[in-house]
Amino acid sequence: MVYSEMLSKKLEGADAKEGDRISLRKGDEEYVGRLMAHHDFSAPDILILKMSSGYNIGIRVLKDSEIKVLERPAVKTVEREEPEPRKGLPNISLVSTGGTIASFVDYRTGAVRPAMSASELVDAVPELRDIANIKTRPLFSIFSENMDIIHWQKLADAVAEEINAGADAVIVPHGTDTMSYTAAALSFMLGDVPKPVVLVGAQRSSDRPSSDAFSNLMACARFCAEGKAAGVFVVMHEGLGDDLFSVHIGSRVRKMHTSRRDAFRSINVPPAATVSKDGKVEYLTELRAPSPGKAEARTAMDDGTILLQYYPGMDPKVFAPIISGSRGVVIAGTGLGHVGEPMCRVLKDACDRGIAVIMTTQCLGGTTNMNVYDTGRDLLSAGVIPVGDMLPEVAYVKLMWALANSESVEDAKRMMTETMANESGNRRCLL
Amino acid sequence: MVYSEMLSKKLEGADAKEGDRISLRKGDEEYVGRLMAHHDFSAPDILILKMSSGYNIGIRVLKDSEIKVLERPAVKTVEREEPEPRKGLPNISLVSTGGTIASFVDYRTGAVRPAMSASELVDAVPELRDIANIKTRPLFSIFSENMDIIHWQKLADAVAEEINAGADAVIVPHGTDTMSYTAAALSFMLGDVPKPVVLVGAQRSSDRPSSDAFSNLMACARFCAEGKAAGVFVVMHEGLGDDLFSVHIGSRVRKMHTSRRDAFRSINVPPAATVSKDGKVEYLTELRAPSPGKAEARTAMDDGTILLQYYPGMDPKVFAPIISGSRGVVIAGTGLGHVGEPMCRVLKDACDRGIAVIMTTQCLGGTTNMNVYDTGRDLLSAGVIPVGDMLPEVAYVKLMWALANSESVEDAKRMMTETMANESGNRRCLL
Repeated sequence: MVYSEMLSKKLEGADAKEGDRISLRKGDEEYVGRLMAHHDFSAPDILILKMSSGYNIGIRVLKDSEIKVLERPAVKTVEREEPEPRKGLPNISLVSTGGTIASFVDYRTGAVRPAMSASELVDAVPELRDIANIKTRPLFSIFSENMDIIHWQKLADAVAEEINAGADAVIVPHGTDTMSYTAAALSFMLGDVPKPVVLVGAQRSSDRPSSDAFSNLMACARFCAEGKAAGVFVVMHEGLGDDLFSVHIGSRVRKMHTSRRDAFRSINVPPAATVSKDGKVEYLTELRAPSPGKAEARTAMDDGTILLQYYPGMDPKVFAPIISGSRGVVIAGTGLGHVGEPMCRVLKDACDRGIAVIMTTQCLGGTTNMNVYDTGRDLLSAGVIPVGDMLPEVAYVKLMWALANSESVEDAKRMMTETMANESGNRRCLL
Repeated sequence: MVYSEMLSKKLEGADAKEGDRISLRKGDEEYVGRLMAHHDFSAPDILILKMSSGYNIGIRVLKDSEIKVLERPAVKTVEREEPEPRKGLPNISLVSTGGTIASFVDYRTGAVRPAMSASELVDAVPELRDIANIKTRPLFSIFSENMDIIHWQKLADAVAEEINAGADAVIVPHGTDTMSYTAAALSFMLGDVPKPVVLVGAQRSSDRPSSDAFSNLMACARFCAEGKAAGVFVVMHEGLGDDLFSVHIGSRVRKMHTSRRDAFRSINVPPAATVSKDGKVEYLTELRAPSPGKAEARTAMDDGTILLQYYPGMDPKVFAPIISGSRGVVIAGTGLGHVGEPMCRVLKDACDRGIAVIMTTQCLGGTTNMNVYDTGRDLLSAGVIPVGDMLPEVAYVKLMWALANSESVEDAKRMMTETMANESGNRRCLL
């Protein structure tokens, strides 16, 4: 806390504490918001308010500005009773990882923190208990930008355990930042998983009135409870309203907006299904049916894999060493799968060294086709492997997995060209 | 040419030459397409045909397959008369760089090659002469994946020269792969350029009936001839039909599909304008009016700049050396502008070394906001600079330019947070 003396006195005089909803009157303007902690990097006469939009603003407080407390948040107590399982309802395990969906605004620091436990999350949506018997299993409490390979592995193991212990479906609340990476990792690690495994996130923290946490979670549970599809999926808002939700194939989805509720988009395929507010599931593509089999998690990953976006001016002197030091590299090339001549030579050299070089497109939409232009044909001749309409990030995750779950690099390269978890093919975009 | 003896004989027997439109009958099926050169990497009994869709397919020829020549392409001759300038028409300079828009299929190798000259391109669209006096200036003949910093610099100089020599507008036919990178580079290099500078591409080569080269070029010329907007723009198909074209702000556009005609999309802003088939221009945003001033190209670029996409599993040991060896790095972070903790430390260290570290979002849609989550606040405290809704690639181009056109790194960092060529701000996406 490094407020100026003037501002400190004003706050004390008004008995304004962090977390209070306050009014700040400055000249003719009035600002109303939640009082946040002072930023280390803000001037000492700046007050930070969290507005009802959820975003923070900094306001310079003047000598004649007035501060009033409008409301103080009540201290919440949380019920902690595990209800009896009800017969006839499916059993859903909720394996929580953290993220905005399970987070609240920390009024001490003004930041959003992952803190709500899995059971608190379920208790906050009592309707969930009408859809399924929900068992909660807290696994991590981290923001998804800190999800790493080891977390994917532990998560895949936990999901498989839940299924093999009788879960009809597993729901994974997850931060949205890297949710699609985790969905891709689970897609390959869990292979032909016999039940639905559904990741769900939120773009607004659970303690905010505009939170999409609960409606996404309900849509997710309804899709799981129907029990008509096995595989790894992501459920999020279909649009800005609370009336329709999309079920995306775990290996075909990408976060395409920083903040909108409908940020998640299926790329190069339609969503697998939609779920309406009243629980109606409409299937848009044919999906694998659940089966009574066991789940198996093949979690080995080769961490000698890198992902690079090509761009004009990309310096081969800078990138050749890290490529030649890798065991596999995924390039997000331009257009149909190209890089400029200097990087072409670097990739050819990498192929010669036995490194798996995989080509995707930074366009995201459409498919690689390296037969059309000279550059592409040169790369093909060198041994670069185009992977069609697979997203760059998905190719990266798949390559880590393929290198660790194959007999040889050649075997891994072959796996990259085969569709294993709906990650490529099916529909070519040749319009 | 490494055909099998059987296939060589069949081709000789039918007098089939590369470039011929042939019919291949195999069992009950008939394939009709343009005969392409044999791929080095295809089996000796595989024939490559370019289908009317423009894509190549390989067909295994059997002993009882039949080959017939349907049509042989005529040898083209090209008219080369420069018409007299017509009074009352604006003067447009066409500075050509190559790319699909100026390319044809090379029947010797089956690949698309950049070969049509600027004047050939104009001669192929005689209607252009009704809209403006077109002067052509061939500059390069390369595919856009080979465009490099030096090409941007030469192009900016050429564009400024044309304007200062009296051009009312400059059209730049360009390969689509890196057209948006070049558009961003011209946006910063040409600053408040007093005339329209419009890049235009094609997704299908000019000698194909489905080519979008001519319709894009016409729309581009019409937008230029109206003379109501100065700045750097990109004109391409708005949709799949030939009836509407979008004019994109040069610093706000991205190729979002490998092959569709409507691949180019304005991100985080609406297109600047649309042009209908019959030449009606509708302005969707307010644009700067042309003026009689001179154009100035500030082309210095700092090539010690790199662009990296963050992803889970990104190894700090691999990336720390190339970041600390750079003068500026643009990160396409997750969500609102995040990276995992290990890479956080690498970026903090880079800031401490005086390297400009710029944060963008790999979501593409939306804006960075690093005040919401702990990770973001840590990065902000360290000196990482978020650049709102600026595209990662545009931030990369701008950073190269800012580092080379400023007094100090601090000055360059400040420039990164100011909107200089419509590349950020104006509209926040806080939905």
